[in-house]
Amino acid sequence: MISNTKKGLVPKNISAKAIIKKILAGDRVSLSRAITLIESSLYKDQILAQEIIEKCLPFSGKSIRIGISGIPGVGKSTFIEALGMYLTAKDKKIAVLAIDPSSERSKGSILGDKTRMEELATEKNAFIRPSPSNGSLGGVTKKTRESIILCEAAGFNTILIETVGVGQSETAAHSMVDCFLLLMIAGAGDELQGIKRGIMEMADLVVINKADGSNINQAKLAQGQYQNSLHLFPANESKWRSPVLTCSSITKSGIPEVWETITEYIDIINKNGYFTKRRQAQTKYWMYENINQSLLDRFYNDTEISKKIISIEKAVIDEKMNPFHAANILINEYFNK
Amino acid sequence: MISNTKKGLVPKNISAKAIIKKILAGDRVSLSRAITLIESSLYKDQILAQEIIEKCLPFSGKSIRIGISGIPGVGKSTFIEALGMYLTAKDKKIAVLAIDPSSERSKGSILGDKTRMEELATEKNAFIRPSPSNGSLGGVTKKTRESIILCEAAGFNTILIETVGVGQSETAAHSMVDCFLLLMIAGAGDELQGIKRGIMEMADLVVINKADGSNINQAKLAQGQYQNSLHLFPANESKWRSPVLTCSSITKSGIPEVWETITEYIDIINKNGYFTKRRQAQTKYWMYENINQSLLDRFYNDTEISKKIISIEKAVIDEKMNPFHAANILINEYFNK
Repeated sequence: MISNTKKGLVPKNISAKAIIKKILAGDRVSLSRAITLIESSLYKDQILAQEIIEKCLPFSGKSIRIGISGIPGVGKSTFIEALGMYLTAKDKKIAVLAIDPSSERSKGSILGDKTRMEELATEKNAFIRPSPSNGSLGGVTKKTRESIILCEAAGFNTILIETVGVGQSETAAHSMVDCFLLLMIAGAGDELQGIKRGIMEMADLVVINKADGSNINQAKLAQGQYQNSLHLFPANESKWRSPVLTCSSITKSGIPEVWETITEYIDIINKNGYFTKRRQAQTKYWMYENINQSLLDRFYNDTEISKKIISIEKAVIDEKMNPFHAANILINEYFNK
Repeated sequence: MISNTKKGLVPKNISAKAIIKKILAGDRVSLSRAITLIESSLYKDQILAQEIIEKCLPFSGKSIRIGISGIPGVGKSTFIEALGMYLTAKDKKIAVLAIDPSSERSKGSILGDKTRMEELATEKNAFIRPSPSNGSLGGVTKKTRESIILCEAAGFNTILIETVGVGQSETAAHSMVDCFLLLMIAGAGDELQGIKRGIMEMADLVVINKADGSNINQAKLAQGQYQNSLHLFPANESKWRSPVLTCSSITKSGIPEVWETITEYIDIINKNGYFTKRRQAQTKYWMYENINQSLLDRFYNDTEISKKIISIEKAVIDEKMNPFHAANILINEYFNK
């Protein structure tokens, strides 16, 4: 089912208690409405959203959270559909969320196009939610992180977070998932071209997609090359050496192996304590991220500051004002009014 | 000359005007005292420092700013001494600054040990300043950035910024230099092991140090390998393809070529406009960095907040409180008191 942000908004006078009860019963319309509250910029919606999140929190956490990243063109949507269909067939309940701070400009290119994931969208055990269509990266990721909690409370036990291929979204996704999967394709020419090294370093699993037809050999070749590259990175705290797999989202070959590898990874980090450690670190990180984001948002959204900052920034760029003094002027204005 | 932070503090009742006049005349004792003011945590020193920086600003900017980075053991100090001696012999005026947020713990391991750079330290055309020994990374880099302005106003036309080999210091240094030089050595075994890819990506120039004696062949081999790695990165906005050189800080072989390459690079980016563009972007970045840093510092140094945050963080880690709600509680407390 695709969650719709346009219609089905929250009816007037609905109580947090009523929504929570329905979410915990697995009602997807209520889940959808609650996420709409999270995404709302209205103060009263925010209050209601916070109450719902807090009450759902004790029922959350019992899922595997998987980040799926890769540059445009690697076939993230078809991969998610293939993996999602494989999992719903195994009676898993799948929620697909997205982090795409650019979606306002691109008008929902990510997960927003309903012709994508057509098959998965009709599955009763799948819940697909487009990326919030407004806000900064910080704002969007906060909303995604909060949505995870509600999806888990509604009984979804496998959360897939899709990101677009720009560095910061990946870092944001990495900070909220248990397993970070990097999707790639075998390119003509240089296999590593254009891939930021920082993203490969974060990957718990690399999957070469489109390993089908005449592309199979090239995919196998790329697999070897990426595997060599990954060997250059020191093993991280999880003690897991990130493997490289190949798959085809069309023929479905390799999809079961992707899932087996994910569960093997989760199993290992569950046993050695890294799973819990990572989740605790993420929770702490999110508290501080949220504080920092709030402090900055309040400052930059301040009416006086946002008026004044334009001319001050210009003076700084034109070398008429020291950037440190400029900052002091604005900070003093903000706190002394 | 090594600037001393311990003695020679600013005499009482000295005016900003008097210090500025002496700095502009190239007086290094006054330069040193002004940097001490920048590093001071006293409010009245900060006010005086801001005035000096602002008045010096029109006389700053006319230098080449070079960041020098590399993991411990690559020989940064001896390299800086060799390059510095080469440049002072060419009548350049060299200032050596440092970014090392860890220097409080390591008690000034970086540039703080006066037995290092002994030769350069006695040069009248060299000014060596240890890293500020307290404060967060944000604080330390702010002080370094402000010190650059004063050194330039005092007539130093080549600024070398040394960093320790941990990711964030490099990013900070990169945001204040015209040329970012990564120093490496030919290692036994895997040449790329342990080097964060993000730092290689920032390098405008990679130099393999210790290319002397029986090490020369290995250094040449490493040069080829690093050059191949760098070819994988797309050329950045400067249109410059980062080269890999070798040198020996002991025999001095390769040092002139390092300088030639730096000047060639500066020449190219001066002509294609990237130099100015990068400096403007840096200035703007520093204004916002300073605002953001101030907002966070004020919050986390708030007496009430710093008391309360410990127990709230614990509740969050123990999953007794939602990290978003925790943040809201603290933010509301901060703004409503």
